[in-house]
Amino acid sequence: MYCLVKFAPLFLAVAVCNGWLFGDFVGKRSELDEISLWPLPQKFQSSAVAFKLSPARFQIVQAKQSSAGPSCSILENAFRLETFSQLVYEDDYGVNNINKTDISDFPRFAHRGILLDSSRHFLPLKVILANLEAMAMNKFNVFHWHIVDDHSFPYMSRTFPELSQKGAYHPFTHVYTPSDVKMVIEFARMRGIRVIPEFDTPGHTESWGNGIKDLLTPCYSDSSPSGAFGPVNPILNSSYDFMTQFFKEISTVFPDAYIHLGGDEVDFSCWESNPDIQRFMVQQGFGTDYSKLESFYIQRLLDIVAATKKGYMVWQEVFDNGVKLKADTQIHVWKGRPQYQDEMAQVTAAGFNALLSTPWYLNRISYGQDWVNIYKADPQNFTGTDAQKKLVIGGEACLWGEYVDATNLTPRLWPRASAVAERLWSDKSVTDVDNAYNRLVQHRCRMVKRGIPAEPLFVGHCRQEYKGL
Amino acid sequence: MYCLVKFAPLFLAVAVCNGWLFGDFVGKRSELDEISLWPLPQKFQSSAVAFKLSPARFQIVQAKQSSAGPSCSILENAFRLETFSQLVYEDDYGVNNINKTDISDFPRFAHRGILLDSSRHFLPLKVILANLEAMAMNKFNVFHWHIVDDHSFPYMSRTFPELSQKGAYHPFTHVYTPSDVKMVIEFARMRGIRVIPEFDTPGHTESWGNGIKDLLTPCYSDSSPSGAFGPVNPILNSSYDFMTQFFKEISTVFPDAYIHLGGDEVDFSCWESNPDIQRFMVQQGFGTDYSKLESFYIQRLLDIVAATKKGYMVWQEVFDNGVKLKADTQIHVWKGRPQYQDEMAQVTAAGFNALLSTPWYLNRISYGQDWVNIYKADPQNFTGTDAQKKLVIGGEACLWGEYVDATNLTPRLWPRASAVAERLWSDKSVTDVDNAYNRLVQHRCRMVKRGIPAEPLFVGHCRQEYKGL
Repeated sequence: MYCLVKFAPLFLAVAVCNGWLFGDFVGKRSELDEISLWPLPQKFQSSAVAFKLSPARFQIVQAKQSSAGPSCSILENAFRLETFSQLVYEDDYGVNNINKTDISDFPRFAHRGILLDSSRHFLPLKVILANLEAMAMNKFNVFHWHIVDDHSFPYMSRTFPELSQKGAYHPFTHVYTPSDVKMVIEFARMRGIRVIPEFDTPGHTESWGNGIKDLLTPCYSDSSPSGAFGPVNPILNSSYDFMTQFFKEISTVFPDAYIHLGGDEVDFSCWESNPDIQRFMVQQGFGTDYSKLESFYIQRLLDIVAATKKGYMVWQEVFDNGVKLKADTQIHVWKGRPQYQDEMAQVTAAGFNALLSTPWYLNRISYGQDWVNIYKADPQNFTGTDAQKKLVIGGEACLWGEYVDATNLTPRLWPRASAVAERLWSDKSVTDVDNAYNRLVQHRCRMVKRGIPAEPLFVGHCRQEYKGL
Repeated sequence: MYCLVKFAPLFLAVAVCNGWLFGDFVGKRSELDEISLWPLPQKFQSSAVAFKLSPARFQIVQAKQSSAGPSCSILENAFRLETFSQLVYEDDYGVNNINKTDISDFPRFAHRGILLDSSRHFLPLKVILANLEAMAMNKFNVFHWHIVDDHSFPYMSRTFPELSQKGAYHPFTHVYTPSDVKMVIEFARMRGIRVIPEFDTPGHTESWGNGIKDLLTPCYSDSSPSGAFGPVNPILNSSYDFMTQFFKEISTVFPDAYIHLGGDEVDFSCWESNPDIQRFMVQQGFGTDYSKLESFYIQRLLDIVAATKKGYMVWQEVFDNGVKLKADTQIHVWKGRPQYQDEMAQVTAAGFNALLSTPWYLNRISYGQDWVNIYKADPQNFTGTDAQKKLVIGGEACLWGEYVDATNLTPRLWPRASAVAERLWSDKSVTDVDNAYNRLVQHRCRMVKRGIPAEPLFVGHCRQEYKGL
């Protein structure tokens, strides 16, 4: 879909074939310890033959067999290739060197994502862009933007401007304008990263209710409205009319083929308290099974979104509740109970694409080197057939926003998310923790050198320490 | 000892009596919710009478009864008083207001410290200075600088330059020069903060051994030296000669009346392996009790430091091992077993000043609002007489450096250390967690506004979010 993605295997080859012809041969180098690729390529052979790089004369050219012309600006831009730059090391004299290296590379999984949550705390544009840069350094290719939730609605909608006017923490300073959103998408696209927005309904929508009258269910207490509101009201046609218009806008603003529709953690207590909802349940013959009402809502929402020609991702509850889903629906596994391995098996046994996040909730922190367990988790580590394993399209590291904002998000995410990056990119056999530690220590210093405040794994230092706070 | 400390009660009174005479009366204000003092003053009475502050005309003058003249530059400088600035709030029109307020304030404990560790990771000067600024905002008055340890020796000694030349992570980029140290001390002094350096011996000294021949004990394996080294060699006169010269320098570089001498976690295995040490143990009649050898070393070290006219702080092991201590020695309690309450009782029962850190090891992190338990700990919460309680001079929040450096130190420390700040400053009765939450949320936004990346307590926003990464 994007030029960059399409040509990825090609331009890697270009760098391999031609890159160092423009360096100066400087003889053999015995120690390769300065070279630490992350994530590890699928096939990689380095030799001791080293070349010096001259900033003035160095260039990357396309191989003769390349089918991409110079008109592909993304490819031209991408000649700052991540893997190539990791091969360059500074010697004791400050000269950039590179060793003759053959690399043949491709990702193990197609979907390698990071979820950021801009609702619990507003994330300034600068923070999002810096993390897209870090994602590119780690070969992540999906930014799952959990853009709105109960606590605030920072997305500025052209169709319903009152959503952010009344639902954001502040209508001017704590919003993403259409041009902000465009910038995020374009900045990501230039780095081979898709932006998948999540607009989670029918739960997690408290902030939506400020701007849209009657969208949320009025909760009752002692047979009168309590003043509180619950999930989207699933029994009013106006709710679906709103969703139709809203997702029509979203489908044009975000060019990716997929939208994440949420569908998690719907609290039934408000629905249960509301006499109109109770009456509707009887009419529909749902008894007291409110998950049937949830499915009723989701079913209609999926039809609305399908009409925009987008595919959809949903949290696992939507699958668990037996909602009828299009064959290309992607099921996002996040719960710890039942065991995520069982859920992965069930989702793929039903023929759906599965994405894993359960072991990668990076908002959860503990003392010490927790990257090790993050690194050990494998999305295909469940009991199932080869066909089932092939339905696993990847995973996402999630950094939910309750305890993070611009002050601490970046060091909390990196390099812990780098452990996920290697799991999703490199061969399944790449599991040596000691080896990973040594490479990751250097990789995190590389991020620091580029201005990303990636936190240390353990005691030690970087040649260039972080210059911010 | 410092002008600022001496006059602290005085200039607070000045601000109260005269500060707002230079503001414009703007009538009554019903809501005081914008005013959130941290730490809470001992006595505080705010009225609804509000004054506008004009940046052009506002000034603070001394009361007639003030004994400090305009020559006290620290007092002049300190007219940026922390408590006063917290009383100022911005109204909806961006005008700074202040309400008529009477404050009578003094700290509950004299010693309110933060320990930073610049050995496990080097901390750039900028990070130290920013945290001194944050300390002042929280009325901390001691910077306990755990400047060197096993992993690196960044302190550049004039007497023994080889210590940092060979013991720092890098001899030029990862060191504190004499002028760096001077700057830290002066920057702290202007904010009423003492700098107490820690040079921990005889353990935690691996990095010292690179620069000073024969300082450390050679470890043996199968009756020959293994190549590894243990704690400072306590049986050589040269060790004590070195310490005499070294602490003579330290006592002049650091003006504070106290030095922290460490003395924690001495590993006996290397001493046990060394035949010369074994022989010495026999000569001294120590049997196989190596804590007697440790005490032998510490005893001589304390005499050396006492000769420089400095007082000393030590970690609790020195007390636990029964070393003979000067009456003014401060015992720093840090262990969790036995319970720190018992240790506090024993230390004070023996007549020594006690400092608490056990519940305030802020390097230990967990998911969620861990500031609450930090806030609830009280250094006087142990079984003992009033006389014992009076020997508790305060405490320190410790941020050990295994997992922190410039990338993540500041948000990990703040506002969690603010919880310690209030415990050490405010009245014992100030324990309401909900009230503290509301004030601390605003206090952390105040830090963010001043450029300190203090992390969020929970979901929410600041009017001005952090502008860095």
